[in-house]
Amino acid sequence: MKDLYPSRKNTKPEIMKRKDPVIHTDRSKDAQAPISKRQLDFYEENGFLQIENFFSEQEVSEMQKGIFELQGESSDVSSEKVIREPESDEIRSIFHVHQDDDYFKKVVNDQRLLDIVNHLLGSDVYIHQSRINYKPGFTGKEFDWHSDFETWHVEDGMPRMRGVSLSIALSDNYTFNGPLMLIPGSHNYYVSCIGETPDNNYKESLKRQKLGVPDHDSLRWLADQGGGISVPTGAAGSITLFESNTMHGSNGNITPYSRNNLFMVYNSVENQLVKPYSGGEKRPEFIAVRDGAPTLSSSR
Amino acid sequence: MKDLYPSRKNTKPEIMKRKDPVIHTDRSKDAQAPISKRQLDFYEENGFLQIENFFSEQEVSEMQKGIFELQGESSDVSSEKVIREPESDEIRSIFHVHQDDDYFKKVVNDQRLLDIVNHLLGSDVYIHQSRINYKPGFTGKEFDWHSDFETWHVEDGMPRMRGVSLSIALSDNYTFNGPLMLIPGSHNYYVSCIGETPDNNYKESLKRQKLGVPDHDSLRWLADQGGGISVPTGAAGSITLFESNTMHGSNGNITPYSRNNLFMVYNSVENQLVKPYSGGEKRPEFIAVRDGAPTLSSSR
Repeated sequence: MKDLYPSRKNTKPEIMKRKDPVIHTDRSKDAQAPISKRQLDFYEENGFLQIENFFSEQEVSEMQKGIFELQGESSDVSSEKVIREPESDEIRSIFHVHQDDDYFKKVVNDQRLLDIVNHLLGSDVYIHQSRINYKPGFTGKEFDWHSDFETWHVEDGMPRMRGVSLSIALSDNYTFNGPLMLIPGSHNYYVSCIGETPDNNYKESLKRQKLGVPDHDSLRWLADQGGGISVPTGAAGSITLFESNTMHGSNGNITPYSRNNLFMVYNSVENQLVKPYSGGEKRPEFIAVRDGAPTLSSSR
Repeated sequence: MKDLYPSRKNTKPEIMKRKDPVIHTDRSKDAQAPISKRQLDFYEENGFLQIENFFSEQEVSEMQKGIFELQGESSDVSSEKVIREPESDEIRSIFHVHQDDDYFKKVVNDQRLLDIVNHLLGSDVYIHQSRINYKPGFTGKEFDWHSDFETWHVEDGMPRMRGVSLSIALSDNYTFNGPLMLIPGSHNYYVSCIGETPDNNYKESLKRQKLGVPDHDSLRWLADQGGGISVPTGAAGSITLFESNTMHGSNGNITPYSRNNLFMVYNSVENQLVKPYSGGEKRPEFIAVRDGAPTLSSSR
């Protein structure tokens, strides 16, 4: 399949225009969407959308209990799916929870979520990746700027920009505890990065991403275009949807307040993975689902 | 002189109550202050005060020009006064600018500033330390929590809490570019830290402070007491005054936006340095002025 979004192939970075719609259901059908026209406009323009109080207090406390139980059970587990902080042994992420854990299987299949992502992607969807992120207080490290799509395209063979990430806040997000930062409007540009992808790059990149991190000039340009940096904050139970190509990152966290979330990626069933565009090996199932993923439909 | 605030002497951390006033001019004389009663209340309660637009645009652009000229002139200078980032060669701070640079000598002697700090400290003052801080975009590192007073007491022999730090913002401070974070109310407690101070500790601590950083439980307790974390933001030209013992720190900065400020410490002439309470050598003049500092008086 032709590579519409080449990256890590040249010695100079390049900024290209996006070649895909942002919302894949025609805007004439806005009235059928489970979110408002205003929310759709915001998502289309900025590449992300924050919805406060999406989950009830009861649901939030169940999910919080769930993530800490799983963290406890995983503390001595030596598995590729359990990622630890580079400078300590604390668990930073647990992957593939939408299959491995009965409780989180239910959460990621929440029909309210599926109705939204089906509308945004204009088709049935499946789960490309899921994980719980624990950003501990005091020692949480920064995560550098990247477009998820760039990695999924190069390392997983995702052909088009037709995926959406969804983060469920499971602790209160302040401006100061290393929250998600996004560059509004950046989803409309693709930064072709430099560097070549070594085999098994994911073993490093899940701890600290180095490849697929745009150069400083491109980042400055994107931020200038988009009017800066956005930091959605909000209480536990809010959700953030962001387009697969929206540039994002987070600063470290020296405050006492941890930042935890449940994170999942929905991809259109019409955007199935092919061979990685890097030409290298595909990454393991727990990072990039290929086989037998259930198709998830809208109720609408 | 009796050590009222012992630290780095025991193997267990301890939290003590402050033994000094916060505002050293009697509050019955509020009307004589160059700032309002409301501002004095805020400072007394929280341990810091932010004043927006303190300097005019014209003054700000002169100071901005000044710090970059000095950075340029210092790029090849190998001096203890020029501090670089731990992982790169970029200049992080230049010390002692209130004596070494004619332009900044004028700035730190600005009568509007002196009137405020004289009132807060209840006496004539002198400059204990001055520096320019450059926090570059993309690579600015975090600075861990600390009370300045703890270091000045242990390493410089400052007897009492009767100093005030003043930061002049020379770039716009956002929530996301590694701004100063303060724990409101923390100035009312003194965290006695663990560890022993080696000779020449300042050579390390100016790059990354390790000693005098409180333990996690104490920090959590302080934040719970004070109602969290405060992040004063504002345009270039705003000033932040903070009490010598207010707990503060900053996260790293992966955004394209640098964060620069001019920082100076005023100490009461009635609070002259004695021998360091660590029992070790005193630090060099450029970090802790001892000799021949001019006395700075209020105009009021």
